[in-house]
Amino acid sequence: MLKDPSIKYKAFQAIKFPQRTWPEKSIAQPPRWLSTDLRDGNQSLPDPMGIEEKQEYFQMLLLLGFKEIEVAFPSASKTDFDFTRYAVENCPDDVTIQVLTQSREHLIRRTVESLRGAKNAILHIYLATSDLFRDVVFNMSQKVAIEKAVEAIKLVRSLTKDDPSQSGTNWTLEFSPETFSDTPEEFAVEICEAVKSVWEPSVENPIIFNLPATVEMSTPNVYADQIEYFCTHISEREKVCVSLHCHNDRGCAVAATELGLLAGADRVEGCIFGNGERTGNVDIVTVALNMYTQGIYPNLDFSDLKSVMQVVERCNKIPVPERAPYGGELVVCAFSGSHQDAIKKGFASQEKRWKAGDKTWKIPYLPLDPRDIGRDYEAVIRVNSQSGKGGAAWVILKKLGLDLPRQLQIVFSTLVQNQTDKHGRELKAFEIVNLFNKEYYVDQQSKPVYIEDFSIAKGNKEERSLEAELIIQGKSVFINGKGNGPISSFVDAVSKYFDLHLEVLNYNEHTLSAGKKSKAAAFIELSFKNKNNESRKKWGVGIHEDVSLAPMLAITSVLNSMVDIGEIVLLKSE
Amino acid sequence: MLKDPSIKYKAFQAIKFPQRTWPEKSIAQPPRWLSTDLRDGNQSLPDPMGIEEKQEYFQMLLLLGFKEIEVAFPSASKTDFDFTRYAVENCPDDVTIQVLTQSREHLIRRTVESLRGAKNAILHIYLATSDLFRDVVFNMSQKVAIEKAVEAIKLVRSLTKDDPSQSGTNWTLEFSPETFSDTPEEFAVEICEAVKSVWEPSVENPIIFNLPATVEMSTPNVYADQIEYFCTHISEREKVCVSLHCHNDRGCAVAATELGLLAGADRVEGCIFGNGERTGNVDIVTVALNMYTQGIYPNLDFSDLKSVMQVVERCNKIPVPERAPYGGELVVCAFSGSHQDAIKKGFASQEKRWKAGDKTWKIPYLPLDPRDIGRDYEAVIRVNSQSGKGGAAWVILKKLGLDLPRQLQIVFSTLVQNQTDKHGRELKAFEIVNLFNKEYYVDQQSKPVYIEDFSIAKGNKEERSLEAELIIQGKSVFINGKGNGPISSFVDAVSKYFDLHLEVLNYNEHTLSAGKKSKAAAFIELSFKNKNNESRKKWGVGIHEDVSLAPMLAITSVLNSMVDIGEIVLLKSE
Repeated sequence: MLKDPSIKYKAFQAIKFPQRTWPEKSIAQPPRWLSTDLRDGNQSLPDPMGIEEKQEYFQMLLLLGFKEIEVAFPSASKTDFDFTRYAVENCPDDVTIQVLTQSREHLIRRTVESLRGAKNAILHIYLATSDLFRDVVFNMSQKVAIEKAVEAIKLVRSLTKDDPSQSGTNWTLEFSPETFSDTPEEFAVEICEAVKSVWEPSVENPIIFNLPATVEMSTPNVYADQIEYFCTHISEREKVCVSLHCHNDRGCAVAATELGLLAGADRVEGCIFGNGERTGNVDIVTVALNMYTQGIYPNLDFSDLKSVMQVVERCNKIPVPERAPYGGELVVCAFSGSHQDAIKKGFASQEKRWKAGDKTWKIPYLPLDPRDIGRDYEAVIRVNSQSGKGGAAWVILKKLGLDLPRQLQIVFSTLVQNQTDKHGRELKAFEIVNLFNKEYYVDQQSKPVYIEDFSIAKGNKEERSLEAELIIQGKSVFINGKGNGPISSFVDAVSKYFDLHLEVLNYNEHTLSAGKKSKAAAFIELSFKNKNNESRKKWGVGIHEDVSLAPMLAITSVLNSMVDIGEIVLLKSE
Repeated sequence: MLKDPSIKYKAFQAIKFPQRTWPEKSIAQPPRWLSTDLRDGNQSLPDPMGIEEKQEYFQMLLLLGFKEIEVAFPSASKTDFDFTRYAVENCPDDVTIQVLTQSREHLIRRTVESLRGAKNAILHIYLATSDLFRDVVFNMSQKVAIEKAVEAIKLVRSLTKDDPSQSGTNWTLEFSPETFSDTPEEFAVEICEAVKSVWEPSVENPIIFNLPATVEMSTPNVYADQIEYFCTHISEREKVCVSLHCHNDRGCAVAATELGLLAGADRVEGCIFGNGERTGNVDIVTVALNMYTQGIYPNLDFSDLKSVMQVVERCNKIPVPERAPYGGELVVCAFSGSHQDAIKKGFASQEKRWKAGDKTWKIPYLPLDPRDIGRDYEAVIRVNSQSGKGGAAWVILKKLGLDLPRQLQIVFSTLVQNQTDKHGRELKAFEIVNLFNKEYYVDQQSKPVYIEDFSIAKGNKEERSLEAELIIQGKSVFINGKGNGPISSFVDAVSKYFDLHLEVLNYNEHTLSAGKKSKAAAFIELSFKNKNNESRKKWGVGIHEDVSLAPMLAITSVLNSMVDIGEIVLLKSE
């Protein structure tokens, strides 16, 4: 890099347009969409699509709801011509096929031929208008460019809407001044006026002026100024459809498209997940779902974004980036503890709001409900070594239906963090679940201590009297205790039998989700003295259909873990 | 997706700010940069960096020229605390270490402790200010939020710049109202005023107000309005550094950052290649190189972007997308024939301009010279089945130094296209070179026909008389012919000897690049009759230091290929 790049690179000379009104606007309705995945997208692939891939992709675009699809550059190759024929012959009546051609006679003739018999067709023709392209690539003056454009459009007109043999087709003309983003705005309007007067569009069938940022030249507000200038200077605006076609060289294609819509444009050309030359065309998924999060249905259906990604990745042979808006694998993931905590609270609060009738979506860090695009909440929170207590707790909530008490969250998250530190990687949800089940003896049937049976009798006043049969390391043992309920009386019975001085520090119980056969989950933290007479505390978890048995299982969960780590010896008679 | 999403999703209520001036501005100088790769970036990785990776990454950031680096959330874990100590102890004197903390006393104390002994330190503290975060996550009013902020800053002040034992450190305070992008603008200013009056910044050491789009809420012009509102409403603006921290939820983080700079911000927080929570933080590479293409040195040096990518990909374990601006593998590639053709013409035209003293960079489709960031021109043009003639010709020009005549470009590109169609994939440059060498017999020593020696004598007037010794399938043969130069006399000699009626259709010769020992390359298209007396034409290529021998080699190149495909039989005596 040069320390003084000002000799080599000149700042883009932006249009002066203080009359702009677009910064006061907001997007109120979806544009007309044109997918150029099969043309601009395909031509920029290291391995372009084969015919079967193009067909699969075309069918997907129809399913998503695209009504305008650019399918090829038919004069460029037999493959492109043949696929145009496929599209013409397999296209629903309400969909328009678009193809691209240069402004040269034999290419135009071949291109028109490729569309023969289409119900609706857009012939998209382009011509160099920027100084750089006119001077360096085509060596042609502005005057000559206008003459060439007029000549080409006259030919197109004679071959299409003026040709009686073509009257079965509803013809639309699209003209692109290339590259619009680098073309003096007066000249862009001038050449489009010339084209328009030759084509003679109508209000019912407007001409499309596509204004490409073929190369992104400046900040997106400059492009918006250019678009508003064009929209306010072209005559017969009602017979013109202003179309945007933004590339992403400066990383601002989505912004340029959105600001261009504010500036008055009617139509957006782009690709799914932003494929296309170099940095790609604008990503239509992002622009469409951005609108959706503002309450506007974009007329494109990405309800099953995962399947869309699969088709796109298979056909393009380019993966969708992990952080691509909406589609990327990581964009609905929160690894940080504070983010996880906020999302959890957001869901809890929203559940209350929804029950109270306020159905708006307001979740921290999640502008879109992942379920609306076929993604799962389970992916929302993932646990790495940077995660706090919230993440692991979320996994347990989603996988086991257990809503861990705050103190238990802290204890369990430390265990999880030890594991992530140890492995030096993220823990999978199933690993977190396994760790939880193992640590808290959720399944106790094969464990050293097991409750075979119990009965509770009412004693004096508030007192309860409990008798229980335990299976301890295979042997049947009968214990009994007293208390004001099942927990205290079971603790009393166990304490007496094992001489353990157990004390309940925390207790929490909730029913599991209503969908299943109703069960209760109990969480109990006990303090005790170990065999060296040191104070210890430990959480236990018990799940059972019997709300009395669940907390007892939580207590035996603690006993079992104490046995396993050698803190206590159970069979005192041995 | 809902067909009517307007119930679930409400449009963002944008600030009304018609006083805005930012659309008239352009970016004139680089901001202060803060890399949060090691904090925001690292916390959002499925597999966060280990200590060695963090160290390597930190050293890379120093090499790139970052002067402010957020290294950790030291109160969150021992790993983060320890790495903060590493950074403090290994940081050059002109670099400032930044760390993040929540506004809680014990976390603040631990965070300050982690920075002890630093030469320059930024303590970055955040507090919930948006309605959603205050209400749902922290259940705290605006009033309580201000009280908490004041209390926290008082504590920070007492532990840092007011603590004599900390006087060795140059302390800066950074405060982030979270999430600024969703906070009422009046309240954002109000809480920052409260913070500022407690901290008492100076012109020399301003307070940093970081205004995060923690979640991107609307189009980037709205964020710019919010920033300009803040910049024009905060008091003592000269004692305030306004900092941007944009996430990419709507794909507009780069745009929001650039428009935020237009709106008056002084500083940008982000990550290399846009790592960070969910869709990532703004990509600093893109923002910096966008400036560079406008003639502004960004104070960050990405001259060796490839090495940067390698470190980033290794440490983050997330690949840089193929279409990422500037860095992506495909962004300097042109596959389409018309793009390739334009780029070739652009380079040719630029060479002339540069020789004439105009050193500006103007190449179609390439806003930045790839060499400025350590990328090669060879990657610029790649050849797939959609490519036209220009692509293959470019490869031959760059690899062999041969500037193919236009007609030969067309013939050769058809051969290449047959191969790409056949293999169904892009051809590598070496495959194109191999195809060329094979087709045009560039190395003829082991071929059926070889020129052993020749001499040219001056005959009458303009006539030349040529004698040559050919080795034909191992046998020595002497031929002679007449003409007005070496080509015509060699053609005459060969035609007579083989009875072939050769005719020169096209001829072109140029010297190879001056860097090598000077050689001439000759391109000749010959017509001839094959053994069935049918007309054929074929290009030949000859390269030699002797400018007379080169075109003869081009002619024997044609003979050799004709022999190989059985079009002619050479040894008529057999």
